Amino acid sequence: MIINYSLRIDFVRAKSTKVGFANFPLSCRQNVTSAWSKFLSAKWKEASLKTSTEINSNEGSVCNKSMNIVWHKCSVEKIDRQELLQQRGCVIWITGLSGSGKSTLACALTRALHSRGKLTYVLDGDNIRHGLNSDLTFKPQDRAENIRRIGEVAKVFSDAGVICIASVISPYRKDRDACRSILPDGDFIEVFMDMPLHVCEARDPKGLYKLARAGKIEGFTGVDDPYEAPLNSEIVIQMEGEVCSSPEVMAEKVVCYLDAKGYLQA
Amino acid sequence: MIINYSLRIDFVRAKSTKVGFANFPLSCRQNVTSAWSKFLSAKWKEASLKTSTEINSNEGSVCNKSMNIVWHKCSVEKIDRQELLQQRGCVIWITGLSGSGKSTLACALTRALHSRGKLTYVLDGDNIRHGLNSDLTFKPQDRAENIRRIGEVAKVFSDAGVICIASVISPYRKDRDACRSILPDGDFIEVFMDMPLHVCEARDPKGLYKLARAGKIEGFTGVDDPYEAPLNSEIVIQMEGEVCSSPEVMAEKVVCYLDAKGYLQA
Repeated sequence: MIINYSLRIDFVRAKSTKVGFANFPLSCRQNVTSAWSKFLSAKWKEASLKTSTEINSNEGSVCNKSMNIVWHKCSVEKIDRQELLQQRGCVIWITGLSGSGKSTLACALTRALHSRGKLTYVLDGDNIRHGLNSDLTFKPQDRAENIRRIGEVAKVFSDAGVICIASVISPYRKDRDACRSILPDGDFIEVFMDMPLHVCEARDPKGLYKLARAGKIEGFTGVDDPYEAPLNSEIVIQMEGEVCSSPEVMAEKVVCYLDAKGYLQA
Repeated sequence: MIINYSLRIDFVRAKSTKVGFANFPLSCRQNVTSAWSKFLSAKWKEASLKTSTEINSNEGSVCNKSMNIVWHKCSVEKIDRQELLQQRGCVIWITGLSGSGKSTLACALTRALHSRGKLTYVLDGDNIRHGLNSDLTFKPQDRAENIRRIGEVAKVFSDAGVICIASVISPYRKDRDACRSILPDGDFIEVFMDMPLHVCEARDPKGLYKLARAGKIEGFTGVDDPYEAPLNSEIVIQMEGEVCSSPEVMAEKVVCYLDAKGYLQA
């Protein structure tokens, strides 16, 4: 029988229970009292002393025995990184047609947040295709896999405490919703660039609409492949009449949302 | 003809050249003089004024015209994030047999760096298999793909300015070297957990050596699959006689290396 050994027990953490500790869930950790802190600190010192004694005495076969009883403070968690950064990790998922201004908004947003001392990172659908997703084609199943991987990386970034800005056409609702579903409630902030097709096509910054209309690109979103508009996105960016807001004004809308939801502090 | 449209021109940046700017390469940016700063600032104001005028006058068809001539300051770069974090993004790649102490070191290292106010993130080979790499099996080609993707994600993290700690068996030299090759010189710091097999097997924290010896796991590194030890890793962690260093002492060795190489400041 072949066993899939991907399931693991973090043995460092498992061992913390040996001196009577379980990990605190996030919600509890915020309520740790100073009495608890003192208790933890005392236990930590106790465990450290124990460890060094046993390393020095070097009993048993090589070092596995002493390793086994080392008490490790649980590792650095999201809440700790957020405290360090004075912000809350999240994913801002910018979706919309090619030419709708996703990259422009991502760029303005990362600048606006950086100028406020916040750590951001832009995951751009196209750029990621040069590295992580360089093995993927533009066939439907690979486009879905492209989105899935970007969603997973964005999740890891938000866990790192970073405000991760993903700029991806992501035309299908189910792919976007799958990315939302792997994140804690509220941490997936969908921004819909609700620009009319004719505006995007008139801009055509990469000349792709022209190629698609000429039949040189197949399955191009908005031309011969559908874009499923979000139904309940957190933020919608639209034109006012026939005028587009400046990138800075669009970014400010997102910054205001983040501020109101408490993402710009720990 | 079907065109692969993954190659893109960042049109925001391309446009910056319209008012006479190219992006500064990293090395140049560090030497930007205050005169340059003033010049840039003046140009930025000039461009902003131009933009708002054109948005207000709303000439041309909808907003694509005014969007086209907006001058965007180039986006937030790695150097800016490093300045914010007061550290340099890099990848600490911990390689070694199962049970050699990779996770233990990763855990101690993230704590040590966090306590110095540095932003770290641990990418654990096993944990990533639950998310990004959940589609991969343990077949040889999938194990290589597992490493490749972790390397790509680690690269993105280091670009974000984060000190990324990857803890992965990564038994083959070519897979590790491929991860090294995608990073700027010096930013891939290989840490070899050089522990004898019998020590790792005696620890057997996940009970996997037992299963492998019983023939219940195939292709287990160190048992029926080779581990190719690094030839020129930046850091080697070894036992001193029959004694293992404590996690804190091992971590300190890595911290000293990072400090000496300037990774703990911007």
